[in-house]
Amino acid sequence: MFDWSGWEESVSFAASLMEELRVATTIDSRICRPSYGEGEQTAHDLFVRYGKALGLETRVDPVGNLHLTLAGADRKARRWLTGSHLDAVPDGGNFDGAVGVVAGMTVAHALRQANIMLPADFTVIAFRAEEGSSWFRGEHKSHFGSRALLGQLSRKEMNDAVSIVNGKTLWQLIRDAGFNPDVIDAGRSCLDAKSVQGFLEVHIEQGPILVYRGAPIGIVSGIRGTLRARDCRSTGAYAHSGAVPCEYRRDALFAAVELAGRLESKWHKWLEEGRDVVCTMGRFFTDPSRHSLTKVPGEVQFTIDIRSQEESLLREARDYLLETASVISGERGVDLDLGSLDMVAPSLMSRELQEKLAAHADALGIPAVPIASGAGHDTSSFIAAGIPSAMIFVRNEHGSHNPDEHMEMKDFSQAARILAGFILDQKPD
Amino acid sequence: MFDWSGWEESVSFAASLMEELRVATTIDSRICRPSYGEGEQTAHDLFVRYGKALGLETRVDPVGNLHLTLAGADRKARRWLTGSHLDAVPDGGNFDGAVGVVAGMTVAHALRQANIMLPADFTVIAFRAEEGSSWFRGEHKSHFGSRALLGQLSRKEMNDAVSIVNGKTLWQLIRDAGFNPDVIDAGRSCLDAKSVQGFLEVHIEQGPILVYRGAPIGIVSGIRGTLRARDCRSTGAYAHSGAVPCEYRRDALFAAVELAGRLESKWHKWLEEGRDVVCTMGRFFTDPSRHSLTKVPGEVQFTIDIRSQEESLLREARDYLLETASVISGERGVDLDLGSLDMVAPSLMSRELQEKLAAHADALGIPAVPIASGAGHDTSSFIAAGIPSAMIFVRNEHGSHNPDEHMEMKDFSQAARILAGFILDQKPD
Repeated sequence: MFDWSGWEESVSFAASLMEELRVATTIDSRICRPSYGEGEQTAHDLFVRYGKALGLETRVDPVGNLHLTLAGADRKARRWLTGSHLDAVPDGGNFDGAVGVVAGMTVAHALRQANIMLPADFTVIAFRAEEGSSWFRGEHKSHFGSRALLGQLSRKEMNDAVSIVNGKTLWQLIRDAGFNPDVIDAGRSCLDAKSVQGFLEVHIEQGPILVYRGAPIGIVSGIRGTLRARDCRSTGAYAHSGAVPCEYRRDALFAAVELAGRLESKWHKWLEEGRDVVCTMGRFFTDPSRHSLTKVPGEVQFTIDIRSQEESLLREARDYLLETASVISGERGVDLDLGSLDMVAPSLMSRELQEKLAAHADALGIPAVPIASGAGHDTSSFIAAGIPSAMIFVRNEHGSHNPDEHMEMKDFSQAARILAGFILDQKPD
Repeated sequence: MFDWSGWEESVSFAASLMEELRVATTIDSRICRPSYGEGEQTAHDLFVRYGKALGLETRVDPVGNLHLTLAGADRKARRWLTGSHLDAVPDGGNFDGAVGVVAGMTVAHALRQANIMLPADFTVIAFRAEEGSSWFRGEHKSHFGSRALLGQLSRKEMNDAVSIVNGKTLWQLIRDAGFNPDVIDAGRSCLDAKSVQGFLEVHIEQGPILVYRGAPIGIVSGIRGTLRARDCRSTGAYAHSGAVPCEYRRDALFAAVELAGRLESKWHKWLEEGRDVVCTMGRFFTDPSRHSLTKVPGEVQFTIDIRSQEESLLREARDYLLETASVISGERGVDLDLGSLDMVAPSLMSRELQEKLAAHADALGIPAVPIASGAGHDTSSFIAAGIPSAMIFVRNEHGSHNPDEHMEMKDFSQAARILAGFILDQKPD
């Protein structure tokens, strides 16, 4: 049995590391860690320094992901990986991403303090550029660091993704940062999947579920897939709000409202059937340059974002939306165009790993509940590569992607303990 | 019987007047006749000149309305009034308003040509500033010229209405234009209602009903009253579109959508009951500075404009909206605030005058259908003053308040003929 008496010291180490990271990457009271920007590099430098102090082997791969390895007894045995990203969205918080790297470092610290040698290597990875959706425009799938590592990032995508900060392509930024984008391409993995037992990622929850349920920890069941329509448009005809009777109107608003109302009803029906799904129409607006109190709206633009762990539900949703839009268009003489409906499949966590993590939480007396992830993570890249993976969520007040995200170190400690318990429990291959 | 053989000459006179007006008030290819602005004054000067040429008595009242009178046999007998306004909305057309003044001039022209003396005076009025809603911000009820004439414009309102062109108050503009705003106040009419038999206004239709029905002329039954909410707001909470499940959301959009959907259903129910009503939500939008594809909307702003000839329906609509908003707010934990719900009562045309105008149309073989007016007109001021009033609508392509409004002189001729027939038919008091 592992002696947990030194654990609080490792948690203090984690707290110092988090705080030093916050101070080093704050500009004008805001966290500033753009993907492939200065703040992200500062964070990587900090983890190199801490890693070396812990006696970890440090390696930087061709796109700049940092690999910190605690050597095991058999250097050739299949190893466990953990980690997350060090970049952060604009005006984000200190925890989204970084917590997962710090959790790995905390486990390494505890093992070092206890003079324990694992049967195989244990590697903590700090990924680059997970927040690509916020920092890059153009056609791309974000999560650049982990996807590059696993041979999922194409050259085309590196040229299509353009920084919103300076207009450079991802390829240019990787090269300018001193790395080697030319060895990266789709199908060319930098990681030998056979050398790996699995991947685990600790991350703050990005929603309020753990707060509402009063649980510090969530064991993630899967990452919801998405069905997204970014450019929907209802086009009718502008008309005088008093002088044009109902039968001569082609009201773009009431048509879009009918679609929205039907989607919400369908959503509630899915939920009654016990299915996992969330539906959002985040943008929904009449044309500010033409609308007025006294005009029948001639145009409405809107977006749709549907997420589910069930790929079949996303397909069903797509069919439902297209069918419903077509019926409404026909009945109202309004053109309801949903534009392109893009689907990303869900990523399911390894059931075996979920069960093991839950068992460790249970053994350690830590309340942990199953939870779905609504947002994407680097773990998706590992699942796509066929590597058994799982995630541990830490309770977080105020959601993520904003400066108010807030994690208690007490909750963090529980997540890192589950990770430590799991890593300690591994037998040689 | 009146000899109509010279009528076409009077219509040619009308066409020249309309064309001269268009040319004189066009700047950079756009009609420019702001209320109490230069273009409106140019129009008034033109009508003074044409009036004098026809031998009409010209008088300008304290707010600048122009009164052109064809003297009758008994100068003290109760007279008929007709007319409309000469200002136009920004980027509007040549017909909205002016057509009603030209129709009166056309009748005067025909009477002069035929050397007919009416038993009483016949006065054509060109009103000022009917389009106040477009040219003045602040709390006011527009239709300034006719309301000032009839003692319905208060001093407070003249100070509250502020020009969007130069920031001057209505009071200042009236004074700067050389008139005398100080004699104007609510309750102080400049017109002796007892000296008047009634008021008739010819106006282009502002909607498409006559075009769709294939009728050149509409006999107006009433001006719809309005129930307006200019500043409605649905306030929920912004949240992550993937990470926050349904039960923890307070989605401002779906709440506003439910209200909109229910209002539309209620509207259709009213129509099935045969009631006169139109419902519009002209502005409806998530916050452009905060909304995104991946955020549950935390705020939606919208407007409501309901119009009906039945005052009871407008009251019913107000109760329905308040009740429904309250129910939705309670069920969804979203604050649906409709702000101030302002009601303007409908103005009903004299039934006797409607019947007489319809009979004249019939006798002249002119297809005329009953029609409701969705927009307000100077006639409302006369109805509010207890003066028997009626309106004749002329078919118009493309709606009004835009540069594409289009009236055929052939249709105009029919409206002016009905007016002439009616005026000729009047017996001495």
